[in-house]
Amino acid sequence: MTYCIATVLDEGLVLTSDSRTNAGIDSVSTYSKMHIFRTTADRRLVLLSAGNLATTQSVVEQLRRDIENANVNLNTMNYLSEAATYLGKVSRDKQRLYANADVQSSFNPTATFILAGQIGRGQTSAYLIYPEGNSITTSSQTPYLQIGESKYGRPVLDRFLTMQTTLEEAARCCLISMDSTMRSNVSVGAPVEVLLYRKDSLSFDEYYSFEADNSYMLDIRQQWGDKLKQVFLSLPPLDKRYVMPLPQSSR
Amino acid sequence: MTYCIATVLDEGLVLTSDSRTNAGIDSVSTYSKMHIFRTTADRRLVLLSAGNLATTQSVVEQLRRDIENANVNLNTMNYLSEAATYLGKVSRDKQRLYANADVQSSFNPTATFILAGQIGRGQTSAYLIYPEGNSITTSSQTPYLQIGESKYGRPVLDRFLTMQTTLEEAARCCLISMDSTMRSNVSVGAPVEVLLYRKDSLSFDEYYSFEADNSYMLDIRQQWGDKLKQVFLSLPPLDKRYVMPLPQSSR
Repeated sequence: MTYCIATVLDEGLVLTSDSRTNAGIDSVSTYSKMHIFRTTADRRLVLLSAGNLATTQSVVEQLRRDIENANVNLNTMNYLSEAATYLGKVSRDKQRLYANADVQSSFNPTATFILAGQIGRGQTSAYLIYPEGNSITTSSQTPYLQIGESKYGRPVLDRFLTMQTTLEEAARCCLISMDSTMRSNVSVGAPVEVLLYRKDSLSFDEYYSFEADNSYMLDIRQQWGDKLKQVFLSLPPLDKRYVMPLPQSSR
Repeated sequence: MTYCIATVLDEGLVLTSDSRTNAGIDSVSTYSKMHIFRTTADRRLVLLSAGNLATTQSVVEQLRRDIENANVNLNTMNYLSEAATYLGKVSRDKQRLYANADVQSSFNPTATFILAGQIGRGQTSAYLIYPEGNSITTSSQTPYLQIGESKYGRPVLDRFLTMQTTLEEAARCCLISMDSTMRSNVSVGAPVEVLLYRKDSLSFDEYYSFEADNSYMLDIRQQWGDKLKQVFLSLPPLDKRYVMPLPQSSR
């Protein structure tokens, strides 16, 4: 499984990804799901990937090869939305190569991506590209995208993230979201990569890769858990004034 | 959608369920998913239901009719596990009636249940009954079962619930879990029913049904949200000592 988050805020982007890949529960490996491209100086692009590893690897490889020797590639796009459409086409083509292999009924070659960054003076933004190749972006009401195991970690994003959240706070929020996910799903795991992009900087200057035993990760995990417990215990107890008779339907 | 939780603790049981039912996003209704049976004095049984409403209604109706006029029913069972097997058979039979209707390809008659309670001096326990009719119970390491939309609300259960949690604290924990789920999935909604069962009491003496505007629900929701935000802001900021160079693969 996988869990990746892209937040698109007034200050810029925060990208977060786990690094665990599994083919069944008995074949677990570590692969980065954050792919940074060597682009021209007028743009910065990063890709987060989820789904079939063979598909995501071949898509990333194709994008890199296209940069080296194709007329259409990430460096020729004028808009991030255009780059998302191009990526969707590459992804769909790669999936189709194996979609009808008919060897195992459970086989699933699909992959989902988030492409984020900035091209020229265009908007700093992010696109979630579905296996079909179509894509969605964020809004001011929903300033984040998730791929992979998205549910365990979503409540904290819904509670804390707004467009005005600073990049540093958003990164902390995503680490908490990631930690909740890793607790409930063993197929999401460290290292956790975090990349901050400040709007209009055209430079990725803050990158982290937190191993499971990183002392900062351990520290916020511990503090979050302990303080959450205190908050929980401080909530008002069940109010017995609301005790009701059993419902009538109990015939 | 649906969200129901059963916690099985040293002190007894806490059952929690939402009440929203939907057939598509444009057909939303309110139905209780907590079914309490009129049983003999030597037992107390409660059923939580998720899945196809026609199936769950016909299963509950069959169980009630069997109590009135069948030789095998919830009152003739000697063990809760035996009752779970009986329920599994009733459920599977009801699903099979319509499973091959072949009218709409998206049709899904499956249903999932949690049966909880105590029979005589037997263990106070809970069983999750799958659509196939087989079932699982809790363990001292995992003292809860969930059906329906289980992921958004699971992290708080994993953090706070142990066998030693009191019934009152467990009820609060389940309400927080329910609140997180309702925030992230509009197809889970009030009223939220909560039932406490004290081990060996053979009596359901504490039942609640919290409407969306119940002041206790609003109070813990508000306090939980506000204090969580304070905790989040009090966490140590990203530690810049861990900033790393971009990964080598960025060719």
